[in-house]
Amino acid sequence: MNFENFKIMGFKNIVVIFLFGTLVLSCNQQSQSEQAVQTESQEPVFAKGEKITNDNFTGTAWLNNLIFPDSLNQNAVGSVTFEPGARTRWHTHPAGQIILAIDGVGYYQERGSPKVIVKKGDAVKCPADIPHWHGASADTEFVQIAITGRENGETVWLEEVTDEEYYN
Amino acid sequence: MNFENFKIMGFKNIVVIFLFGTLVLSCNQQSQSEQAVQTESQEPVFAKGEKITNDNFTGTAWLNNLIFPDSLNQNAVGSVTFEPGARTRWHTHPAGQIILAIDGVGYYQERGSPKVIVKKGDAVKCPADIPHWHGASADTEFVQIAITGRENGETVWLEEVTDEEYYN
Repeated sequence: MNFENFKIMGFKNIVVIFLFGTLVLSCNQQSQSEQAVQTESQEPVFAKGEKITNDNFTGTAWLNNLIFPDSLNQNAVGSVTFEPGARTRWHTHPAGQIILAIDGVGYYQERGSPKVIVKKGDAVKCPADIPHWHGASADTEFVQIAITGRENGETVWLEEVTDEEYYN
Repeated sequence: MNFENFKIMGFKNIVVIFLFGTLVLSCNQQSQSEQAVQTESQEPVFAKGEKITNDNFTGTAWLNNLIFPDSLNQNAVGSVTFEPGARTRWHTHPAGQIILAIDGVGYYQERGSPKVIVKKGDAVKCPADIPHWHGASADTEFVQIAITGRENGETVWLEEVTDEEYYN
C-alpha cells in the first residue's frame, strides 16, 4: 500500500478495519484460553500406565499399578484403560474384586447373568470365585479402578470372551 | 433511520456494519458452545453424596458410600469431598486404609511424620493402627476415594487436628 491508496481509503474506513481486526484477534484469543481450560479439565485422573502385553486381554488395554499388595494391606489397586472393544478374558478372583468406573462406558458380566453397562461413577462388587469379565463398550473407552484382594491367591484366568458373548 | 440517512451511509459502510455484527454474533456463539463442553468435562467422577454431620471432621466434607463391607468383601469404599480447610480428626484403622486422590489438592499426615501434599492421581497406603489425618489443602477442594478394610473392626477416632498442625 502506498500513500496515495492510504488517502483514498479515508480515515473512517481505516478505523472500521482496525476495529474489525481487533475484534477478530480478541475473539480468537478468548477461544484459545477457553480451549486451554477445557483440555486441562479433560486430563484423566490417573496416568494410563503401560500397555498390557499378556494374553489375558482381548484388544488394547493399559495398566497403571497404583498400590501393590504387601504385608500391610493385601489389596492391589490398579487403573485399567480399555480402548473401545477391549475386554478381559473370563476370570475369577479368590478374594473377590471391587470395580470403580472412573470414565467412559464399559461392560461387566458374571457367568449366567446378563451383561451390565457400567458408566463413570458406578461401583461394582464382584464376589470371590465367580467367573466374570469386564471391558470397554464397543464404541467408547472405559477407565476403571480395580481393587483386588490377594489374601487368598492370584487371579485365575479362563477362556476368551467371544465376539458373540461381547456383543450379546 | 429514514431513507435519506440510509443513502448517506453508503452501501459499502452498510456491508461493513453487517460483517461486523455477524462476527460479534458468531464469536459469542462459539464462546457459549465451548463453555458447555468445558462444564460437562468438569463433572466430578462420583456424586458428592451427603454432607457429613458427625464431629469426626473439621469444616465441611461430603461422603458418598460406594461400597458397603459385607461377608463377600470386607472393604468399605467411599468418595469424600473436603472443602478447602476441611479435614478429618486424627484417627486409626485396625486394618489400614488406601487413599486415592481423585481431584484437587489435599494433605495427608501420619503421627511423627511431616504433612504430605497429595494431588489428583496420587495413591497413599496407610498402615493399620497408625494415627493419621487427611483433608483438603487450605485453598483447594480435595476429592478422595477411601478403601478401608473392616475385617479387624471400625475406625478409631482421636483428637481434632489443630490449626497449628494443619498449617504447619
